[in-house]
Amino acid sequence: MGYFRENIEKLAGYEPGFQPSDTEVVKLNTNENPYPPSPMVLDALAAVGPEQLRRYPDPSGTMFRRAAAELNGVDHDCVMCCNGGDEGLSIAFRSFCDRDRPVAYPVPTYSLYRVLAGLQGCRVIEVPFDDEFNLPPRLATAAAALVILCNPNAPSGTFISPAEIASLAAEISGVLLVDEAYVDFAGQNCASLINQFENVIILRSMSKGYALAGLRFGYMMASPKLINGLAKVKDSYNVGAVSLALATAAIRDRSYFEENVEKVRKYRDELTRRLEELKFKVTASRTNFILAESKSPPARHLYETLAERRIYVRYFDEPGLDDKLRISVGTEHQNRALLAALEEIMPR
Amino acid sequence: MGYFRENIEKLAGYEPGFQPSDTEVVKLNTNENPYPPSPMVLDALAAVGPEQLRRYPDPSGTMFRRAAAELNGVDHDCVMCCNGGDEGLSIAFRSFCDRDRPVAYPVPTYSLYRVLAGLQGCRVIEVPFDDEFNLPPRLATAAAALVILCNPNAPSGTFISPAEIASLAAEISGVLLVDEAYVDFAGQNCASLINQFENVIILRSMSKGYALAGLRFGYMMASPKLINGLAKVKDSYNVGAVSLALATAAIRDRSYFEENVEKVRKYRDELTRRLEELKFKVTASRTNFILAESKSPPARHLYETLAERRIYVRYFDEPGLDDKLRISVGTEHQNRALLAALEEIMPR
Repeated sequence: MGYFRENIEKLAGYEPGFQPSDTEVVKLNTNENPYPPSPMVLDALAAVGPEQLRRYPDPSGTMFRRAAAELNGVDHDCVMCCNGGDEGLSIAFRSFCDRDRPVAYPVPTYSLYRVLAGLQGCRVIEVPFDDEFNLPPRLATAAAALVILCNPNAPSGTFISPAEIASLAAEISGVLLVDEAYVDFAGQNCASLINQFENVIILRSMSKGYALAGLRFGYMMASPKLINGLAKVKDSYNVGAVSLALATAAIRDRSYFEENVEKVRKYRDELTRRLEELKFKVTASRTNFILAESKSPPARHLYETLAERRIYVRYFDEPGLDDKLRISVGTEHQNRALLAALEEIMPR
Repeated sequence: MGYFRENIEKLAGYEPGFQPSDTEVVKLNTNENPYPPSPMVLDALAAVGPEQLRRYPDPSGTMFRRAAAELNGVDHDCVMCCNGGDEGLSIAFRSFCDRDRPVAYPVPTYSLYRVLAGLQGCRVIEVPFDDEFNLPPRLATAAAALVILCNPNAPSGTFISPAEIASLAAEISGVLLVDEAYVDFAGQNCASLINQFENVIILRSMSKGYALAGLRFGYMMASPKLINGLAKVKDSYNVGAVSLALATAAIRDRSYFEENVEKVRKYRDELTRRLEELKFKVTASRTNFILAESKSPPARHLYETLAERRIYVRYFDEPGLDDKLRISVGTEHQNRALLAALEEIMPR
């Protein structure tokens, strides 16, 4: 018998996007917000004192839960903090899935789902999206303990309407987790489903819309019945006092948030048009990134040529994605640098 | 079929120590360090900029790993950061244990081990300590995939020698995790076993000796073979950029750390003597807390009477512990307040 469980031994592990230590690059590969977090976050940081560091944090993060509950029109008992959205996903797999309880999700999507299923040793039901990334009807009949829907979806950037998602929630007997990591850029979300369905979890991230990827903060919303069970699985003190203070400051500053998101959406739409002019096939994005197809020159060649110029975008070497680049929306300056490079590289 | 896995449904969950929001209490119930963290930590906090918050952190926490490796005389490939020691424990259970791969540990000990085993759905082999908290020989023959030894042990405060632990590591075929959350107060530790045994993990916490309970930071040391497997199970970005910067500053400030630990040890030994004068039976502690037995008046009565006076200590309502109080070592002022109250409550 080896040291590790067999499923762990076999597993390749998740490969995060490249994080260059050099800051003098155009980094459009991991979907960070191109703008800094709210000044209120920096004020909250300056207000952190030694006593907050010395003592254990509030295990339920009441301060943040109340702020998030108010924003989303749910009760604060319906909110649970997590150490980044990824921890929320890990907690969900550990709560609902095992070898007798499968997970189902449409593909292509966030590649971490497959890794977490491997860690948990549960069966995976992957249902292919059609070419337009519509909700696959087969998800409703998959009889999975957990159905995950990344919405807007990564890396396609596409969005499925809350009404369709409500229908799916009503049809299945298991739990439906809607991963809304990118929803801040979508203009619509599924928060209201929490008050209608006992079996729905909405997962949010503070990494994208709130520009706090470095902090690691996310939250889940669900019926108190689900939240109480999920809370048993999380570490008691899964989010620290500094994170709680900063995330709370960020979520409370609505005007900064809205201005930030508006800028990203504007540059996303501009970048989309310019990429189309350069003959990329682009799916309309509801996120802060763009999936752009190029068969000739091959996407991989573009990815490598851009990297040589220290412009980093994301390339996924897998079926359905290997002819595409995923490009995070950057600042105006970064987007221009990308487009200037592509104008040189792409054939006329 | 319910929403949750059956073992989660059944589980009571871990009960963390009471965290009063009122700071005007004498809080000796959760083993925090009574003194603030190093001033260097506050300098590091002041130096955090918006760019560190905006971007994803270094997924492997290289800065901290190098500092911890140097301190412990191991290679930095033998170090993995975690979001508090509790996350390290959770990662170990998910890596090594399942329904066919049991965990073994001596009892009484840190009650989270039992909860994590319940979450993972693995069999638990609990081997009772003798009255002097010696290493139970039966641990070596339990054929567990994971053996955990909390050393110094919580809540007894007792310490097993590194030589005995080395013998145990050599005898077992599974993994031996030595939970050294409290080792900073013990004067000795097991770090050197990492260079001798492929199957040993040392778990450390920054919550106690470094006064950073609010931050959530711990680390594991093991052979690169084990670290590589454990890294597959952790979230890619399990520790944030602020935590990394602050924990690194703390671990580098050796003189502050040593002064802090020396003070705690001095007051621990003073408090031990005074509790013995008050007729408590006290086990010699190698930690920052004291386990003090009182059959008459019953420990539970003392616990409740102290709480009425807003002096909080920890009481465990379980066999072997229900006649004892676990008292964190406080500042000189806090210890005096506790002793003054006990002098009034205890019979002459």
